[in-house]
Amino acid sequence: MARPRVLVAGASGYAGALAARLLARHPELELGPLTSRSDVGRRLSDLYPHHRVDAVLEELDLDRHGDVDAAIVAYPHGAAAPVVAALRERGAKVVDLSADFRLRDLATYEAWYVPHTAPGLIGEAAYGLTELNRERIAGADLVANPGCFPTAALLALAPLARAGLIADVVIDAKTGVSGAGRAATQTTHFVSVTENVAPYKVGEHRHTPEIDQELAALGAPVPVTFVPHLLPIDEGELASCYVTTSEPVADGALRELYREAYGDEAFVEIVGSPPGVRDVRETNLCRIFTRVEPRTGRAMVFAAIDNLWKGTSSQAIQNLNLMLGLPETAGIEP
Amino acid sequence: MARPRVLVAGASGYAGALAARLLARHPELELGPLTSRSDVGRRLSDLYPHHRVDAVLEELDLDRHGDVDAAIVAYPHGAAAPVVAALRERGAKVVDLSADFRLRDLATYEAWYVPHTAPGLIGEAAYGLTELNRERIAGADLVANPGCFPTAALLALAPLARAGLIADVVIDAKTGVSGAGRAATQTTHFVSVTENVAPYKVGEHRHTPEIDQELAALGAPVPVTFVPHLLPIDEGELASCYVTTSEPVADGALRELYREAYGDEAFVEIVGSPPGVRDVRETNLCRIFTRVEPRTGRAMVFAAIDNLWKGTSSQAIQNLNLMLGLPETAGIEP
Amino acid sequence: MARPRVLVAGASGYAGALAARLLARHPELELGPLTSRSDVGRRLSDLYPHHRVDAVLEELDLDRHGDVDAAIVAYPHGAAAPVVAALRERGAKVVDLSADFRLRDLATYEAWYVPHTAPGLIGEAAYGLTELNRERIAGADLVANPGCFPTAALLALAPLARAGLIADVVIDAKTGVSGAGRAATQTTHFVSVTENVAPYKVGEHRHTPEIDQELAALGAPVPVTFVPHLLPIDEGELASCYVTTSEPVADGALRELYREAYGDEAFVEIVGSPPGVRDVRETNLCRIFTRVEPRTGRAMVFAAIDNLWKGTSSQAIQNLNLMLGLPETAGIEP
Amino acid sequence: MARPRVLVAGASGYAGALAARLLARHPELELGPLTSRSDVGRRLSDLYPHHRVDAVLEELDLDRHGDVDAAIVAYPHGAAAPVVAALRERGAKVVDLSADFRLRDLATYEAWYVPHTAPGLIGEAAYGLTELNRERIAGADLVANPGCFPTAALLALAPLARAGLIADVVIDAKTGVSGAGRAATQTTHFVSVTENVAPYKVGEHRHTPEIDQELAALGAPVPVTFVPHLLPIDEGELASCYVTTSEPVADGALRELYREAYGDEAFVEIVGSPPGVRDVRETNLCRIFTRVEPRTGRAMVFAAIDNLWKGTSSQAIQNLNLMLGLPETAGIEP
Repeated sequence: MARPRVLVAGASGYAGALAARLLARHPELELGPLTSRSDVGRRLSDLYPHHRVDAVLEELDLDRHGDVDAAIVAYPHGAAAPVVAALRERGAKVVDLSADFRLRDLATYEAWYVPHTAPGLIGEAAYGLTELNRERIAGADLVANPGCFPTAALLALAPLARAGLIADVVIDAKTGVSGAGRAATQTTHFVSVTENVAPYKVGEHRHTPEIDQELAALGAPVPVTFVPHLLPIDEGELASCYVTTSEPVADGALRELYREAYGDEAFVEIVGSPPGVRDVRETNLCRIFTRVEPRTGRAMVFAAIDNLWKGTSSQAIQNLNLMLGLPETAGIEP
Repeated sequence: MARPRVLVAGASGYAGALAARLLARHPELELGPLTSRSDVGRRLSDLYPHHRVDAVLEELDLDRHGDVDAAIVAYPHGAAAPVVAALRERGAKVVDLSADFRLRDLATYEAWYVPHTAPGLIGEAAYGLTELNRERIAGADLVANPGCFPTAALLALAPLARAGLIADVVIDAKTGVSGAGRAATQTTHFVSVTENVAPYKVGEHRHTPEIDQELAALGAPVPVTFVPHLLPIDEGELASCYVTTSEPVADGALRELYREAYGDEAFVEIVGSPPGVRDVRETNLCRIFTRVEPRTGRAMVFAAIDNLWKGTSSQAIQNLNLMLGLPETAGIEP
Repeated sequence: MARPRVLVAGASGYAGALAARLLARHPELELGPLTSRSDVGRRLSDLYPHHRVDAVLEELDLDRHGDVDAAIVAYPHGAAAPVVAALRERGAKVVDLSADFRLRDLATYEAWYVPHTAPGLIGEAAYGLTELNRERIAGADLVANPGCFPTAALLALAPLARAGLIADVVIDAKTGVSGAGRAATQTTHFVSVTENVAPYKVGEHRHTPEIDQELAALGAPVPVTFVPHLLPIDEGELASCYVTTSEPVADGALRELYREAYGDEAFVEIVGSPPGVRDVRETNLCRIFTRVEPRTGRAMVFAAIDNLWKGTSSQAIQNLNLMLGLPETAGIEP
Repeated sequence: MARPRVLVAGASGYAGALAARLLARHPELELGPLTSRSDVGRRLSDLYPHHRVDAVLEELDLDRHGDVDAAIVAYPHGAAAPVVAALRERGAKVVDLSADFRLRDLATYEAWYVPHTAPGLIGEAAYGLTELNRERIAGADLVANPGCFPTAALLALAPLARAGLIADVVIDAKTGVSGAGRAATQTTHFVSVTENVAPYKVGEHRHTPEIDQELAALGAPVPVTFVPHLLPIDEGELASCYVTTSEPVADGALRELYREAYGDEAFVEIVGSPPGVRDVRETNLCRIFTRVEPRTGRAMVFAAIDNLWKGTSSQAIQNLNLMLGLPETAGIEP
C-alpha cells in the first residue's frame, strides 16, 4: 500500500524545513512537494545543508499539489487560514503550525491577531497538544499545532490543573532565537543576542490567550502571567512555572501526581533534577522537574523542550501520525 | 595627601581580580598588595590579561600587609571571617565580598552556611547595597557586600517593599557563568553551558535568606520564591520579579514610584522598555523596567546588572568610596 | 545469528559516551559493557542525558568483560596500550581511539608521547582513516582511529598528495571545545572560551607527526605546518589547508580531482561553496571545498567535520562495521 | 581654548556609534553632530544603550554641520567619497573609515570596488595604520583608516617585511560578526552563526589588494593569500600569518625583531604565549606572538585586535589625535 504523501507549505522557514526533514526520513510517510513564498526554485539543501533534503522549493499550486493525503502548513498567522481552507476542500488532512485555528473564540483571536478569513473551520480544528488531547486529534482532519510556549507551559501545568490545584500561576519562559523565525532583524542579529538576555513582549505575548484557553479547559480558569525571555541559544525552551496552589501539596505528592499523569508517555520524562534544554535538544521530548518549596509552599514545575521540535515540527509529525492511524512515535523516536 | 592604600585579599578569583583592576585605575585610591591562596608568585596580568594589572600575587601576611588603609576581601564564605577579623584588628576598613557578615541572625547564617568564626563582628557590619543603605555604609568600618542576586532583586523590589505593596513575590533570576566563580567544574565547562539553560539550586539557593532579611527590613516581611537559572553568557544577571500586590497599582503609578525612588541615583536607570544585560555590561549600573499586567494586576519588575560589577566588585568600590569619604562614583563612572 | 557485542572502555568521556550512544542504536551491533575509570556506578544517562543510554558504568574487568566480540577503547594515550593488548589477547577486535597505535615509528611515538608499553602491536594496527585505508581496515583486528585534526586534514589533502602536487602546506585548523575532552580546566571554562579565539600548541601539537606520516604514505613527504585554534563552539572542526603546488593547477581541475577521488564516498561531500561546521554537525560527514587562487596559484582546501563524530566516534563505528563485515554506513547514516 | 569639535557621519552603524562613544568621553575633543542615513530622529542611546551617548541622530546637512574642525566618516565604500570631498572643501580634517581612499592606484580601487567619484583626493590621503605611518598621518588632512584585517595583518607582518624576509605568506584570519556590520542578514542571524565557523569570500576579499599595497610599500612585494573566517563572537579578530622566509630566521631573533620594532609602541604588545582576542577586547591594542617552527623553518605571527576598536574606530581616534596635535593615546588608553 502506498505511504501517505505529505505536502509542506512554507518549507523555507525553520519550522517547515524541519518538518520536511522529518518527513523525508519517516518510515511510513512520503515527503510530497515543498513550497515556499520566498525561495521558489532554490534547493532546500542549499538553505539548510544540515537537513539534507535535496528537493527544489516550488510555488504553491493547489491544482498540482492539492492531491496529497496530508499537509503541514507553516505559514504566518493570517496567511495560513486560506491555504488551510483550500487544502481541506481538496480533502487533505492538515496540521497547521500557525495560530489561526488554536483559539476557539473568534473574538479572542481577532483581538490578539488579525481578522479571520476562515472562521467556519475553527470548530473543526483539534488543539494539537498530543499528550493532552490525543483522542480528538486522532479523529480530526484539521489540527491546530500549539505554540511552542503553550506546549511547554501546558505540559508543565496540566496535572496540577486537572487536579484543580492552580490558584495562581506565573510562567517565566526562556527561548532560543530560532523561536523568532528565520527573518533577519536587529533582534536576531548575532551581535544583539550574544552575551545578552532580556524579557520581551512583557504582558503582551500572543501565546497568553492560548495558554489561558487550554488551562481553563483543563480545569484551571485563571489568567496566567506569562513572560518570555530571549537567550543566546539557537534551539531550546524552558518554562519555569510558579504555582500558588489552592491547597497545600507535599513535594512527594506533587512528583507522584506527575509520574502518574505522564507515566505511559513516550515523550515526557519526569526527572529528579532540574532539566536543561540540551537534555532534549533535537528531540520530541519534554523533560519535567517538580518541586514544592517548603518555605512558601509554592509548587514549581520546570519543563524543557526543543522549541522547533516538540514545540513545533516534531509535534506536528506526532499529530500527523495519530491522524493517519500510524504509531504515534513513528519517525520521531528519541 | 597620600591616597588610601587598598589591599585585595583573594585577587586571583574573578571578583578579586576585577576589584584590583578597578583600584589600579581609581583616581583617588592606591592599589595595595594583591594576595592569593592558589596562585602565589604569578602575575595577575598572566591570569587576566585583559585587566592589565601587572602585579605579582603574594601570600597573605598580615604583618607585612596589615598596614593598609582598607581591604577588599574576596574569599569564600567561612574562609573570609577570620581574615576580616584580623584586618579589622589592625584598623583597616574592610569590604567583605563573602556572605559571612550579610546575615544579621547568626542562627540563620549557620543554618544556610557553616559555623561562624567571628560572630562578634556581625553587629558591626553594614549591609552594602549602596542605594538602600547609604548612610550606614558611609559610617561603617566593615561592609558586607551583597550577593549578586540580592543586589538585582532588592533594587528591583525596594520601592514596592517600602510602599508596603508586596503581598507575594516570585524572583526568577538568570545569571552568567562568571557567577559560579573561576573554579573549573563540569558545571562551568563550555560544553555543558553552551546552547543550554537550566534552573539550579531550586528552592535552596543561599541568597534566599539574604533577600528575605533585607525585604523584611524594607517593609515586606514575606518569604520569597527565588530560583536562579544558568545561561550561556559570561557576565550579566537579570532578576525578573513577579509581585502580587497588597492593593491594586496602576502601571503609570508603578513607574512613577520607581522614578521617584531612584531619580537621583547615579547608577540606577529606570527605562521604558525591557532591559538586556548587555545594556549594563561592565558597568556599575542597574537598569530597571516596570510593568503592571492589566489581565492579572500583577506588578512585574525586571532589573539587569553585571553580576561581577554592580553585583560584586564595582559595588565594593562604590561602598569603599563612601567609607573613605570619596565621591561615590569615583573610579566607576559609567 | 547473534549480533556482535561491543565493549566500550572509557565510556564516561565525550568520545566513549558517543560511541556507546551510536552502538545502542546500531541495527547490527549490540552494546556490551560500558566501563569507566572515574565514574563507576553512575548511569551514563545521568552524565549525558541527551545520549539516552541507560546503562551503569562498571570498572573494567577483563575476566568478566573480555568475552566481547569487539571493543572501542577510549582511554588517554599511554593508558590505552595495555588495555588494547589485553583485549587483543582475548581475541576481541579493537578500535583504539588513542594515539597509541597511530604512529608506525616507535621512536617518533615516544618522542611526542610517552614510552610505549605494547610496541609489538604497532605493526598489526591499521590506520583507521576509513576512506583512505579501507582495505587494510577491513582485514584488521586492531585499528588505530585517527586524531580528529588528521581526519579533516588528510581528507582535505589526500587527492593532492596522491597526485604528487604538494610542495608545501600550511594547515590552519579550528576546533570546538569538546576536542579538549571532558576534563574541567581553565582552558575549557566557559568564561575563558566565550567571545574568544586563540591558537594553541603552536608548532607543537601531537597530531603533527601523524599528519606527516600519512601524507608521506600518500605521496607527499613534506613536513606540514599545522596550527590548531580553539573556538567558542562545542563540536565541529574546520581544516583550512593552503597548498603550494609542485606545478600549476587550474581551479576546475582541482575540483575535478576531488570529485573523482571522493565521488563514490558515502561520507564525503565535495561542495561548491565554503563549508561551515554546522553543515556536518552530529554526522559522520566530511564536507570539502576547493579553490585555486588566481593571484597566487595557491590551492586551498577547506574540510569541515564534527570532531566527535567523523573526527572520533562515528568513524570508529565506520571502521568497526568494516572489520566485522557489516555495511560501512550501518548505524551512522547521515 | 575650545576643544576641536568632531562630526561623526554615519553614526548609526557599529563603527560610527563606537567613534561617537569614544569622542563623547575624549578629554580633548568635543563630540559634534551625529548623522545617520537610516535612523534620523532616533537617540543613539536607544540604538546602543551600552554606549551611553544621549544624542539625537540628524540628517547630514553640510551647511549646518560643515563648520566642525574634524570629521569621522563611517559610510559604506562609494558613498563615503563624496561626503569626504565635501567636508574637505569646507576645511574639516577627515578620517574616512571606508575603503575609498585606501588604495593609491585608481584602477585597482575600481577593479575591486566601484567607480570612484573623488579620485583627485586619493593622492592627498595618508594610509592610517598609525604605527606604520605616523609621520604622514600627523601631517595629513585626510586619513584613510585601514580595514580591520589589514590592520591586524600588517602589524603582524611589518617587521618581517621591512627586514626583507617575506618570500611568501598565507594569512588565515578569524573575525567576529560585528565585522559584517549592523545589517541584519542570513549571514549575521544568530542561528546561522552560533556553533559554526566557515571561511568566506575565499580568494576574493576586498582587503586583499590593500594588504598587498602596504606590504609592497614596506618592502615585501609579494601577493598574499588571505582568507577570512566568520566565528561566533561579536568583537575580535585574529590574523594567523604563515611566512616562508627568504632566509632562515631563528625563533629568538624573530621575537627580538618584533620587540625592537614595537618596543616603544603604546598599543602593541609582544607576548610570549599565543594571544586570544579577549585579551584585547574593547581596547586599541594589538597583541602579537611570534614563533619559528623548527621542523619547517616557517615564521608564524599571530596578531589579535578588536576589529571595531583598533581595527576601526579607536584607531580613527588615534589618527585624529595625531592630526590635531594631541597626545596619541588621548581618550583611548588601555
